Amino acid sequence: MRGIQSLNGIDRRTLLPTLALLPALPGTLITAAAQAGAPGGLLPSWSDGPAKQAIFDFVRATTEQSSPTYVAPDDRIAVFDQDGTLWVEQPTYAQVAYCLDRVPAVVAKKPELRIVDPFKTVLSGNREAMEELSLEDLETILAATLTGMTVEAFQSEVSNWLETARHPRWNRPYTELSFQPMQEVLRYLQSNAFKTYIVTGGGQDFVRVYAAKTYGIPPEQVVGTAGTTKFGYGQDGKPLLTKEPKLLLNDDKAGKAEGIHFMIGRRPLAAFGNSIGDREMLEYTCAGRGARLAMLVLHDDAAREYAYGPAAGLPDGKIGTFTPELYEEAREQGWTVISMKNDWNRVFAFEA
Amino acid sequence: MRGIQSLNGIDRRTLLPTLALLPALPGTLITAAAQAGAPGGLLPSWSDGPAKQAIFDFVRATTEQSSPTYVAPDDRIAVFDQDGTLWVEQPTYAQVAYCLDRVPAVVAKKPELRIVDPFKTVLSGNREAMEELSLEDLETILAATLTGMTVEAFQSEVSNWLETARHPRWNRPYTELSFQPMQEVLRYLQSNAFKTYIVTGGGQDFVRVYAAKTYGIPPEQVVGTAGTTKFGYGQDGKPLLTKEPKLLLNDDKAGKAEGIHFMIGRRPLAAFGNSIGDREMLEYTCAGRGARLAMLVLHDDAAREYAYGPAAGLPDGKIGTFTPELYEEAREQGWTVISMKNDWNRVFAFEA
Repeated sequence: MRGIQSLNGIDRRTLLPTLALLPALPGTLITAAAQAGAPGGLLPSWSDGPAKQAIFDFVRATTEQSSPTYVAPDDRIAVFDQDGTLWVEQPTYAQVAYCLDRVPAVVAKKPELRIVDPFKTVLSGNREAMEELSLEDLETILAATLTGMTVEAFQSEVSNWLETARHPRWNRPYTELSFQPMQEVLRYLQSNAFKTYIVTGGGQDFVRVYAAKTYGIPPEQVVGTAGTTKFGYGQDGKPLLTKEPKLLLNDDKAGKAEGIHFMIGRRPLAAFGNSIGDREMLEYTCAGRGARLAMLVLHDDAAREYAYGPAAGLPDGKIGTFTPELYEEAREQGWTVISMKNDWNRVFAFEA
Repeated sequence: MRGIQSLNGIDRRTLLPTLALLPALPGTLITAAAQAGAPGGLLPSWSDGPAKQAIFDFVRATTEQSSPTYVAPDDRIAVFDQDGTLWVEQPTYAQVAYCLDRVPAVVAKKPELRIVDPFKTVLSGNREAMEELSLEDLETILAATLTGMTVEAFQSEVSNWLETARHPRWNRPYTELSFQPMQEVLRYLQSNAFKTYIVTGGGQDFVRVYAAKTYGIPPEQVVGTAGTTKFGYGQDGKPLLTKEPKLLLNDDKAGKAEGIHFMIGRRPLAAFGNSIGDREMLEYTCAGRGARLAMLVLHDDAAREYAYGPAAGLPDGKIGTFTPELYEEAREQGWTVISMKNDWNRVFAFEA
């Protein structure tokens, strides 16, 4: 299961029913003109400043017919990392929380695992011991909890978990912890005919379970780390696809650019990320001609969310590394760094 | 390059500019009611009969709100094999013709190959000797002509080839050899909010070059046999993706169902094929609940196109095997067999 470590980079979902249910009706396109006339009405959770302006400038440059960098609606593609970019990734990726929560069910089916590590440690509930688990231990847990069942059984398990699991800090479903400003960007781009993709180091099958409801992004527009499936027949003779512990796409770092070519087949116009795992995706996006938008979310707001990583002047953590090198590259390349603290006047939809 | 044999199943493209340029405007949805009122106006290249009726019945069952098997527009997915289903696959797959045509350019860059088989045989132009090339020889040629360049260089080479290459029988660009009745089905489903995908044993990158212009299908809706790409940087420091001779997805037989899950993430409602390579795709499609449509094109028309395969009462060929077993399964499962001879009153758009 080489490379499965990138399955760590997975996620929580963020149910914003009102926004998610708003269809991106072609008849309600927000034109660049309307946008210019009333920018206050768009992206309301964004404070005025260079980040918000960069988004408006990009949309104007690509959608106004008079613009020299105009792009036909069919060619408008935007890609978004998920963990730490669209929703909270601390204190641990949602998918890792899911896998740990699934261990009792796995052990119930294979009782011999009860006395074997890492399963024994997870069952103990000892959080300190669990934090000491090695990467190899984690891979063992991911393989046991993410594979060996049909794709439908997996979807159903994830769906059930999301109904009941709660984030330890906010005591809310993970799907409520998406960033309201990013939801507004998604809706704004979708309403301007952009096809929006999630490109995540997290599990493709995991994120697909809730992406439509949470982000308005259908399953086929989720690109993520994925294992193979195996076609076969059930006892009733019906065809089945079973999830296998064999890596097919390691959608992290260079794998994000490669995954974009494989799954989408063309270069995006805009890319949003928050860590060193998104670097090649942003580079690949910006290597195309015409107007491009590259943005990085900087987690510098411990009061409303989290502050972590060297770019926030803090020690590096296990998750979501925004390194000084990435910060420097952003400056050199003209990528926009989004300060959660300064650029977002609201972080979550549940903040009234 | 195990599995590269399925790269054989590739293609020719079929420029139907008028049809291809018609956007699938949501505002011009052809409703099931309009369809019931004037079926003669839809699918005009289809003769009245069970095949045409099966398409109408399926669209009515899935798009009429009063139907017990109604499906929301966002959930409508239809998949199409390409070679032999959307366009001509005889006497050889278009992509194989492309690869053979590219051999001189490959040898020009590596002159040492001039005296080495299989390149020597291809350069000889001896068609009989070329037909004797082994599968291994063919794999060597495919690897040499489809990999080792950037994705943009490949796109440009394929695009140039399609401008000048001609089918030996009709002396027309391959892209003019799509089947007009299938173009009408694509347009009909698209206008009823179906997202249409090509799911081909042929090369994903190859088909993506012309699928939008030829079929109205964007690159991200082409699922095909694909190799890996490698992210790196050019001499100017710009990021590049280079095509590698390493198989990532063998999109044939069981691989078609697996590829659909990987690339689309949900089960199609309708599937169209023409050979044993499409069997699992049709089975997987039909294993879902509600109304399903599965169709197989039978090549039984030597006068207007070709007649081949045991199901046409003819010996098996190298390409597009419609076996008696597949015919029997179609009968048992209620899949619709399309007789090119009887069900299509017109095969190509260029037939006035």
